[in-house]
Amino acid sequence: MIDDHPMVESSQESRDIEEAINAIAQSYESDFAINNLESAALPNKRAVIHAFENIAPLVYLGFYSTRPLNRSNLRYAISECVYPAYELLCEQIHRAVTYESSQGRMAAPADAAFAHQAATQLFSSLPRLREMLNEDALAAFHNDPAAHSVEEVVFSYPTLVAITAYRVAHVLYTNGVPMIPRILSEYAHSRTGIDINPGATIGRRLFIDHGTGIVVGETAVIGDDVKLYQGVTLGALSTRRALEEERTARPKRHPTIKDRVTIYSGATILGGDTIVGEDSTIGGNVWLVRSVPPGSKIFGRPRGTETDDHAR
Amino acid sequence: MIDDHPMVESSQESRDIEEAINAIAQSYESDFAINNLESAALPNKRAVIHAFENIAPLVYLGFYSTRPLNRSNLRYAISECVYPAYELLCEQIHRAVTYESSQGRMAAPADAAFAHQAATQLFSSLPRLREMLNEDALAAFHNDPAAHSVEEVVFSYPTLVAITAYRVAHVLYTNGVPMIPRILSEYAHSRTGIDINPGATIGRRLFIDHGTGIVVGETAVIGDDVKLYQGVTLGALSTRRALEEERTARPKRHPTIKDRVTIYSGATILGGDTIVGEDSTIGGNVWLVRSVPPGSKIFGRPRGTETDDHAR
Amino acid sequence: MIDDHPMVESSQESRDIEEAINAIAQSYESDFAINNLESAALPNKRAVIHAFENIAPLVYLGFYSTRPLNRSNLRYAISECVYPAYELLCEQIHRAVTYESSQGRMAAPADAAFAHQAATQLFSSLPRLREMLNEDALAAFHNDPAAHSVEEVVFSYPTLVAITAYRVAHVLYTNGVPMIPRILSEYAHSRTGIDINPGATIGRRLFIDHGTGIVVGETAVIGDDVKLYQGVTLGALSTRRALEEERTARPKRHPTIKDRVTIYSGATILGGDTIVGEDSTIGGNVWLVRSVPPGSKIFGRPRGTETDDHAR
Repeated sequence: MIDDHPMVESSQESRDIEEAINAIAQSYESDFAINNLESAALPNKRAVIHAFENIAPLVYLGFYSTRPLNRSNLRYAISECVYPAYELLCEQIHRAVTYESSQGRMAAPADAAFAHQAATQLFSSLPRLREMLNEDALAAFHNDPAAHSVEEVVFSYPTLVAITAYRVAHVLYTNGVPMIPRILSEYAHSRTGIDINPGATIGRRLFIDHGTGIVVGETAVIGDDVKLYQGVTLGALSTRRALEEERTARPKRHPTIKDRVTIYSGATILGGDTIVGEDSTIGGNVWLVRSVPPGSKIFGRPRGTETDDHAR
Repeated sequence: MIDDHPMVESSQESRDIEEAINAIAQSYESDFAINNLESAALPNKRAVIHAFENIAPLVYLGFYSTRPLNRSNLRYAISECVYPAYELLCEQIHRAVTYESSQGRMAAPADAAFAHQAATQLFSSLPRLREMLNEDALAAFHNDPAAHSVEEVVFSYPTLVAITAYRVAHVLYTNGVPMIPRILSEYAHSRTGIDINPGATIGRRLFIDHGTGIVVGETAVIGDDVKLYQGVTLGALSTRRALEEERTARPKRHPTIKDRVTIYSGATILGGDTIVGEDSTIGGNVWLVRSVPPGSKIFGRPRGTETDDHAR
Repeated sequence: MIDDHPMVESSQESRDIEEAINAIAQSYESDFAINNLESAALPNKRAVIHAFENIAPLVYLGFYSTRPLNRSNLRYAISECVYPAYELLCEQIHRAVTYESSQGRMAAPADAAFAHQAATQLFSSLPRLREMLNEDALAAFHNDPAAHSVEEVVFSYPTLVAITAYRVAHVLYTNGVPMIPRILSEYAHSRTGIDINPGATIGRRLFIDHGTGIVVGETAVIGDDVKLYQGVTLGALSTRRALEEERTARPKRHPTIKDRVTIYSGATILGGDTIVGEDSTIGGNVWLVRSVPPGSKIFGRPRGTETDDHAR
């Protein structure tokens, strides 16, 4: 008699899997919020990131190109990035607004004009963004003695990835594009550990050192020439307000950091009414929930006293 | 006479490389723990991640599909993910258990049944996991005023990546699968900065905001409706116990966080006997190594006193 | 009459994009530091990472190979990685030195010998690096009760990624290779959240747990058997010295950590003159800016007193 166990095993195996498939399919019958099957209407995350991968080279063309660039082939090299980025962005923006209006979260767009306009405005903003990002790169070089050259900063510093994604996402956010800006900023967050909400307002020459763990909230306002070190949080205080109200009214929940402020690693600054005055220094690990005047120097404890805590 | 320097250079070059290759090969003769060449028996990291990339879409199908889904093609779309994920998982689990039993770290499996069973149990668990992950996504939406929609949460929030990987890895961990769960959790850690050990026990509706730097240890226990902010550590206290003993006895080394506890950014809670009672709030940067009763509000210093540290 | 709106729309669209392209091209006429178009001379980031992806398998061959390895095919498997890595590295190093010398930042290399020599020295160092990395992997296994095996450490622990990239980058850095070392270290930073500058000097058996948020500065010196937990910073104190001077003179800006020191999560140690003596323990979240003698135990506040801060 033939031992058909392997056959039984294999058909049992396949019955198990089919059963699991049925159960998974059935779970899509329930009313989970994640059961959304209208994939045609939702933006595609990879396409959004792919668009960004064509936008970043527009800013730093020489760092991405594999052939020498000069005046005669420059325009061609730019077009090679703009057109795919434009097509991807238009489609994804269109999906996002169509979906959001189908959910009653924004007015329905009459046609594809909104997507075209939002995408075009981004590309038109690039010369201005390039000017700002050039200053951001120089700020990193000028503030970090470990930087050997501006080129090294552009090549390898996570701060440039994070600020570039933020400045691009912020233009889209400001023009009312839903979903896409946050996909971009979380892409940068994943790569750098720096979490800047696209809604934040950030001035010129932002310097971020190391960066891992930095959080900049949606309504934070940052002036010019601000320096942030790793682990700094510009966050919200929890409130008793109903969340739905917060979401609709969009009150300022995150702090304002004025020009030329330096915030050292691990400091936490919270609250929409909190203003850190010009030229202030906030020490490492400081926890700050109220405003401080210009020129403040805030430290968790006087520097140099740590050895009082000394126990052998 | 011809200057053959380039030739000499080139053959010198090639001699240098060949010598380096010999030296590297020889270093595999020593008894390094990393000299393991039994690749056939070891799981393949990329295959494990590839399996996960077929499992995540099963949970959030509408967010991954590039075509509209409806009842008639849903089952097909699920099968398209389940079968490759199943094959990859079975092989990798089988490799892991075969390898571990060859090292005497677990009982030898009689056949491939263990791998089949563990993989099937994971797929059978998916409807339950989907229910939990749906609640996790809603918790993120309901707790974060910056979230514009549940869809945005699913698309872009790192917390969903981390919790999805954790819940999948935890099922495998609970069923005794070696190696694979940690590969999954470190994959999520790499993408999100959130490090949840697959052994941790986590209740429903976990909310993680921003997330970078969060550490949840292997024996941590987290109740329902807990909120964790960036940089929170649920860790172990160093002990004088021999490590080998710890590894075998697997005592509880990490804290227990009860229902409805909120832990703000940078707080560190350590020790297996440490219990944070229900409805407690642990402030930012707090360092806690002993239990606190239900309803506690622990802050490193009274809020609003930071300006006493003020020095101009 | 035919409504030609779509056509007008489409040609307007295309005019808008062409205009944006012109403006972007024009922005490359200004004197931005990021306007560098000499792409032929700049290293290619992806090629550098690709080289590293061929170097890491040389260290942990059994963990990458998809077929069983033995003495007879080992040398072949090594060659398969060494040759592409060598070619990629040589070209990228050559680009980096040519570019740097064109900028007057290093002496011009006579020929490609520098690149060949630097690449060969790296491969010749691999047996020694393998010995050290083997010890690093064992240190992780022996210090972490959550580690189930050395294999799990090699497979999934971010610390191994970070230390491997550091040890490789440090060899290149020490041999005077510009740009490439930092590209490697930021690649590891992006994947692990661990930011170790390639210039740092690190002894044997470094143990990093979890790791997210760790920063080790360019002139930091770390002895043997040191343990670092997540969020530890070994950083610089801001000084009044001119930055250009710092960059040229390269003074020691970061601390020295002696043998067998343990530094718990979130601790910050700053300054080039700061020395943490042998066998010291630095507690979580401690802020330290001056030297402490051997055997010190520094904690921000006595452990176990947190409940004094208790307010209900």
